[in-house]
Amino acid sequence: MIKKYIMTPGPTAISEEVLLEHARPLMHHRSPEFSKIFIEVTEKLKKLFKTQNDVFILTSSGTGAMEAGVVNFFSTGDKVLVASIGNFGERFKKICTRYGLNVIALDYEWGDTANPDDIKNALDNNPDIKGVLLQFSETSTGAINDIETIGNIVKNYPAILIVDAISGLGASNLETDNWGLDVVIGGSQKALSAPTGAAFISVSEKAWKLNESANLPRFYFDLGTARSYAQKTPPQTPWTPGISIIVAMNKALDMMFDEGLEKVFERHRVLSLAVQRAIEKMGLEPLVKDKSKRGFSVTSIEVPEGIEAKDITKIMRVKYGVTIAGGQGKLTGKIIRIGNLGYCGIFDIIVAISALEITLKELGYEFEAGSGITEVEKTFIENNYLNS
Amino acid sequence: MIKKYIMTPGPTAISEEVLLEHARPLMHHRSPEFSKIFIEVTEKLKKLFKTQNDVFILTSSGTGAMEAGVVNFFSTGDKVLVASIGNFGERFKKICTRYGLNVIALDYEWGDTANPDDIKNALDNNPDIKGVLLQFSETSTGAINDIETIGNIVKNYPAILIVDAISGLGASNLETDNWGLDVVIGGSQKALSAPTGAAFISVSEKAWKLNESANLPRFYFDLGTARSYAQKTPPQTPWTPGISIIVAMNKALDMMFDEGLEKVFERHRVLSLAVQRAIEKMGLEPLVKDKSKRGFSVTSIEVPEGIEAKDITKIMRVKYGVTIAGGQGKLTGKIIRIGNLGYCGIFDIIVAISALEITLKELGYEFEAGSGITEVEKTFIENNYLNS
Repeated sequence: MIKKYIMTPGPTAISEEVLLEHARPLMHHRSPEFSKIFIEVTEKLKKLFKTQNDVFILTSSGTGAMEAGVVNFFSTGDKVLVASIGNFGERFKKICTRYGLNVIALDYEWGDTANPDDIKNALDNNPDIKGVLLQFSETSTGAINDIETIGNIVKNYPAILIVDAISGLGASNLETDNWGLDVVIGGSQKALSAPTGAAFISVSEKAWKLNESANLPRFYFDLGTARSYAQKTPPQTPWTPGISIIVAMNKALDMMFDEGLEKVFERHRVLSLAVQRAIEKMGLEPLVKDKSKRGFSVTSIEVPEGIEAKDITKIMRVKYGVTIAGGQGKLTGKIIRIGNLGYCGIFDIIVAISALEITLKELGYEFEAGSGITEVEKTFIENNYLNS
Repeated sequence: MIKKYIMTPGPTAISEEVLLEHARPLMHHRSPEFSKIFIEVTEKLKKLFKTQNDVFILTSSGTGAMEAGVVNFFSTGDKVLVASIGNFGERFKKICTRYGLNVIALDYEWGDTANPDDIKNALDNNPDIKGVLLQFSETSTGAINDIETIGNIVKNYPAILIVDAISGLGASNLETDNWGLDVVIGGSQKALSAPTGAAFISVSEKAWKLNESANLPRFYFDLGTARSYAQKTPPQTPWTPGISIIVAMNKALDMMFDEGLEKVFERHRVLSLAVQRAIEKMGLEPLVKDKSKRGFSVTSIEVPEGIEAKDITKIMRVKYGVTIAGGQGKLTGKIIRIGNLGYCGIFDIIVAISALEITLKELGYEFEAGSGITEVEKTFIENNYLNS
């Protein structure tokens, strides 16, 4: 008997309460019973996005919503600025290139964040830039961009700001309207801890304006079609949605708001801080050197000399039932990643760090056994986590 | 207490066995535990498609897979032939048009089927046609195209044949390889009776050949990317899939094969025949006049003079808990549709026809009460359904 712990930066463990909702009998997607839930989920997503803008639910992974964020707002040959700080920034570049956009790339070290001044300079030097695309939390590194500052810059230009907030939304505070974010993208399987298969996208008035002339081809991900169905009575999706996922999301969102968004963010902050402090105590190197650039969703850890990343993840999973992630793209083999998203409590962090300690001892890495988990516990005590 | 019966042509009721699988705790999509299920489901889908071709699972509704069926095989300006016999034929035309293809439309009355000779003539007159697109079962009417004959025609031309089999697959016999079908599209929520949110697509060698030069833009639905991930060890999807849906599909497919595909088809045949005979006994007109053109998935019924379609569907749903469908597109208000797909047994048909009888009596339509359900029962007895 090996108990299972999912500690990846998404998909995340689903609570029993949400799984039970997920298992409810099918409701037809055009039925009043489902409409009620669909309207509720859409309103709750707006609250999570902190926006009055339209928010649409797409039946796809987050990558589908990233594509929707590109094809609905631009025309062939349009100039866009992509600030890339990791694997998902690279994905934005690929999508834009596939659709024939003229991509100006701002590339940063993986582990670093985008410099808002660079974005301002690029916009000043290229007044014809139609859109700025980047990540909030970059899942492949754990770094988090300063979207508030970048939003306050981009809103003074004709360009729209498109933010992939898939792994950050619900883990760290994000204010779509106050920060002037035109398009924000989220997913069901990260901080929400709902089943995989749904993504969300918000659209500002400034973005709708650009949509009017956008000529990139689109059908399934056409947000104009989504809007026309959302404006029906009752609101609907154009195509059959992931019905059970949306029903599950309703419960997952209730659980977030019952806890309180501020407490949810504080939980993610303290859990990720505990991981960071623990691994540093164990002599391990975090990938993101600058503490102020670390997000609250996932911690990337450099693999010590002489040890294989895949041995760590395999032993942790097979022998101890703890699933963490390896690196992506050019960080494959170089880092391991521990997620603390969604349905994840303090003792899940104790478990993950304990499994990591046991595994690293087995692999011959030298450090003081127990130092990691002790530091986790201290972090919780010092941050008054249990009494908050 | 009103018991609920879902009798639409998809999404269909999900069995308790499948719902329980659906409620299993999350497995990570890159874990060996999920890989095993993913490989099994892919193999079972090939068996259902009756193909040795590649079959991919997409996280989207069926419409997303229809788009994948277009964007992966053609280039801007390519000539395609779309045979339209209803609302989903119109959808194929819209997708092709949005992506800048040159669409030759063969339009038929809604309720009729495509004439294979027309397709042959179009191919003879337009040797530059790159693809022929049409439905197997047209969900909006219940008519079913003779895909075997059409497949045997198209395979002699350079064009590829793309078949939307979403509501037909698993209800009626379809032989991808024997009939020479290059691209076949299916969905999780029809005869499989799995949750909504997954679609499948098969690709023949002839279609892969066309894919090499296809320049239509695509990213999320790029089947070349899907293939490169399917060829990894172990096989994977490029983006996070609808994990719980695939786990549920594994059970749903097992249930189909445990019953036996031939028996599954016979069940769908007899259930739809029972609906057809019942409504004719009640003096109602089926939309598809020619019996040989009726599929086994759904029966479209013309609404009698003086009665509103939406009154029928509303009373059946609200008072009696039986959800059937209205018409789509230009048939809105003109027909009602009773589905018999998937997890649907003989007594579900008795229930649906009984609810229809009670409702029509309430709405003043004159017929002999009990004549419909009696005919349903007779159909089952005569077809030896219970002893098969």
